[in-house]
Amino acid sequence: MNGAESLLRTLVNGGVEVCFMNPGTSEMHFVAAADRVPDMRCVLGLFEGVVSGAADGYARMADRPAATLLHCGPGLGNALANLHNARRARVPVVNIVGDIATHHRAYDAPLQSDIAAIAGAVSGWVREVRDAMEIPEAAHAAIGESLRPPGQIATLIVPADCAWNESTEPFTDPVIVPEPERSADAQIREAAAALRSGRPAALLISGLALRERGLALASRIAQASGARLWCDTFNTRHERGAGRVAIAPLSYFPERAQEALQNLEHLVVAGTRAPVGFFAYPGVRGTIAPPDCAIHVLASPEADGLDALERLVAELGAEKFEPIPQPLERPDLSRGALTPEAIARALAVLLPEDAVVVDEAITGGSALLSMTATAAPHDWLSITGGAIGQALPVAVGAAIAAPDRSVICLESDGSAMYTLQSLWTQARESLNVTNVIFSNAEYRILSIEHQRVGAGKPGPKARELFSLRAPDLDWVRLALGMGVPARRATTAEEFIRALAEFLKEPGPGLIEAVID
Amino acid sequence: MNGAESLLRTLVNGGVEVCFMNPGTSEMHFVAAADRVPDMRCVLGLFEGVVSGAADGYARMADRPAATLLHCGPGLGNALANLHNARRARVPVVNIVGDIATHHRAYDAPLQSDIAAIAGAVSGWVREVRDAMEIPEAAHAAIGESLRPPGQIATLIVPADCAWNESTEPFTDPVIVPEPERSADAQIREAAAALRSGRPAALLISGLALRERGLALASRIAQASGARLWCDTFNTRHERGAGRVAIAPLSYFPERAQEALQNLEHLVVAGTRAPVGFFAYPGVRGTIAPPDCAIHVLASPEADGLDALERLVAELGAEKFEPIPQPLERPDLSRGALTPEAIARALAVLLPEDAVVVDEAITGGSALLSMTATAAPHDWLSITGGAIGQALPVAVGAAIAAPDRSVICLESDGSAMYTLQSLWTQARESLNVTNVIFSNAEYRILSIEHQRVGAGKPGPKARELFSLRAPDLDWVRLALGMGVPARRATTAEEFIRALAEFLKEPGPGLIEAVID
Repeated sequence: MNGAESLLRTLVNGGVEVCFMNPGTSEMHFVAAADRVPDMRCVLGLFEGVVSGAADGYARMADRPAATLLHCGPGLGNALANLHNARRARVPVVNIVGDIATHHRAYDAPLQSDIAAIAGAVSGWVREVRDAMEIPEAAHAAIGESLRPPGQIATLIVPADCAWNESTEPFTDPVIVPEPERSADAQIREAAAALRSGRPAALLISGLALRERGLALASRIAQASGARLWCDTFNTRHERGAGRVAIAPLSYFPERAQEALQNLEHLVVAGTRAPVGFFAYPGVRGTIAPPDCAIHVLASPEADGLDALERLVAELGAEKFEPIPQPLERPDLSRGALTPEAIARALAVLLPEDAVVVDEAITGGSALLSMTATAAPHDWLSITGGAIGQALPVAVGAAIAAPDRSVICLESDGSAMYTLQSLWTQARESLNVTNVIFSNAEYRILSIEHQRVGAGKPGPKARELFSLRAPDLDWVRLALGMGVPARRATTAEEFIRALAEFLKEPGPGLIEAVID
Repeated sequence: MNGAESLLRTLVNGGVEVCFMNPGTSEMHFVAAADRVPDMRCVLGLFEGVVSGAADGYARMADRPAATLLHCGPGLGNALANLHNARRARVPVVNIVGDIATHHRAYDAPLQSDIAAIAGAVSGWVREVRDAMEIPEAAHAAIGESLRPPGQIATLIVPADCAWNESTEPFTDPVIVPEPERSADAQIREAAAALRSGRPAALLISGLALRERGLALASRIAQASGARLWCDTFNTRHERGAGRVAIAPLSYFPERAQEALQNLEHLVVAGTRAPVGFFAYPGVRGTIAPPDCAIHVLASPEADGLDALERLVAELGAEKFEPIPQPLERPDLSRGALTPEAIARALAVLLPEDAVVVDEAITGGSALLSMTATAAPHDWLSITGGAIGQALPVAVGAAIAAPDRSVICLESDGSAMYTLQSLWTQARESLNVTNVIFSNAEYRILSIEHQRVGAGKPGPKARELFSLRAPDLDWVRLALGMGVPARRATTAEEFIRALAEFLKEPGPGLIEAVID
């Protein structure tokens, strides 16, 4: 058995059953091996940003890694932005990068580059295979490392000859997953004391704590202590909607987030770190909590946050409080003009139960979270690393991980252009993804940021650089060009009708929502 | 004057007058400064691979650098594949990457990453600015470093506060360009002796030696010595066609290239290195020249190849030979089925004088070079680093550098999908680019490589992974969706008509050439 086959079989044995890929010549033996390993599902992306974003989305919904297969340094480069998002999402990814054969390295052939250096910027673990005989052990280690809590990118660099040379049998041993850190008793006691102090206090959570179980624990803690509840601005996977405990994300804009936390004296964090501004602005503080607010780490992102929350519940005697779920309450639908609010209302009303919402609507999404807070229960996946072009591919991976759930991808037009090739994969795999393109024909966030960083009102050149007009993008044509049914909506009524129809039909669909 | 403005003005003063960009929040002060620096032309790409590829194409035609403006590590990641190609093209690029403000670094904000590590993989020079006061000197140095012979990527990392803080006046001093190495007299004598030895010998050239002047020198050398002439498989810019000296590129397939050089005893190289296989294959030698062939470095890629060729001409007494230019001879046009050969014939007949051809047609381009060898004089730009998705953006940059020349972009459908956003920039800037998409609905090269690496005939899964069908890509819709006029050609006659019309009309156009 050659290295490529032994690698694929080891992955399957270790529970990695999907490989998102865009292979090249140095990966041909993996492609050949795929024909001998029927349990590995191979999903082609026509650009590597689709591959890495899909691996992120898959991991968010499956709670286990997918593999990627990328072609040398440039393929990894193309995948890098969404690997960055996946790193910030703290999800497991087994990131396989093919390379020039070991005996060809001395020649500095055109495609050669320093793959390990590039991979290091996004990976928690990088290993370069040097011999086909190493492969099963290296692949087995990569799976375990990808699952190192809370999850990380484990990159395995495989030179072509290590794929085609004779290897050993695949590993069948159970994957060794490192245990998460367990918060110390002192951390639990410190958090409890802070929340019980009678001073203004809040609990900020993210990661697994945003699943139903964590939210229920947080609700008990809030009731027992009077602490306010917050979650991070951007979260890997947030279970929300009717029947779940409400929790508000901190604002993206640091001044608003700072205002929300003003006068706070104690901030307890679990599954995340003390919040900071996404960007720096002249004259704006970089931290979100007040300077004299005490930060209490109940559980670091690497620790078992649910265990820590449970122990905090016990410490506070909060078991007696029942979690307070939200009711099912849908807003009214809008009529007439198609506005971000009209879209949010339509979504809240039509959202199917257990839908997965992938949100990169940016400025167009201002009303989404409030409108959908009490919609049917759903999962909310947001952009964790700030590298735009994330939602369309994350939707691909989420739909493959959760084939029985409806996936709704809320994507701004500017962001969509970075990874529009995702639509082709959605069509090829007949994924149940309804894409909503928030088409305001502008990088609107940049108009806002231009003024926020103190550069004043954008001049004519700046306005042109923020504009997606001249020429206009036609999202219906772009989608149809990649085999995805599409229609344009310019009124609330058109949008509601299109959304209802696409949600009903199997396979992908796209709505170009023309907003101002 | 803030750092951003001082940087832009220093660039303009140093002859860098075009900035290809995809800015984000940390680059907003550059955008604002652009409104105060009218001599800097700002060209927006909707994906960073467009930006970096355009900078490559610009440098190839302008022989001076453009600047890029990229947003943090993920923006650099998206640009990486075409920066890799630019590195292998050995062209100058002033690569500017914005970063999180210095005082915000301690917070590990979501977009933060190790930019220098990523940049190092493609750059000959990397500098991180730490203070706005450094900026003019750093920008001045970056221009000079980008021009270090033969040309390289000089990356300047600029934290947001260094852009918005007060800086000093821009540099107006002339840019200091390091001198190229000058080949030693011993190298000239060794090359002359090898070529005069009476044993089978060849001269392999690339770089500036593939411009008219270098070709003329090579022709004299060949006539004086009987040496055969070759050039690299993929070249940055090759001036060819009627009135120029013929030179054949080595085959991409190592076995064929090895066969072409079999029995060779002396290989003299100028402006390049001893040729090697693009990839390794089991049982195939990695080097192209025979194992016992002596390699004589007349001029390394870093050296002044034209100077070395001139001195070799003198050493050989070859001044008395006149360069032998090719006649103008156009092939006949094809009729009926649209084949790669029919496309090549049409191109050879219709190629406007001084056209710039950007070639990433891959398997569809098999007949291009032979058919166009004696067409009207033109420049041929090929994919230098093997990172596909290069031709559409290189065409953007070439058209901006050479606005009076017709640019023809020959692009395979698989490659086109990586950077299709280039079409939008072509439309926005009204560039005279005629794009031909070689649409065989397949990564055909991979079917070939699958067998060549010893993986046998592709099985059903492999065939699906090489196929761009199910769904079909519709290039007419994709182009129209980005504002580029487009039509589909399925016969030779349709193709000829479309090519003639698009070449006549100003602005971009796209032909989806449906081939088998």
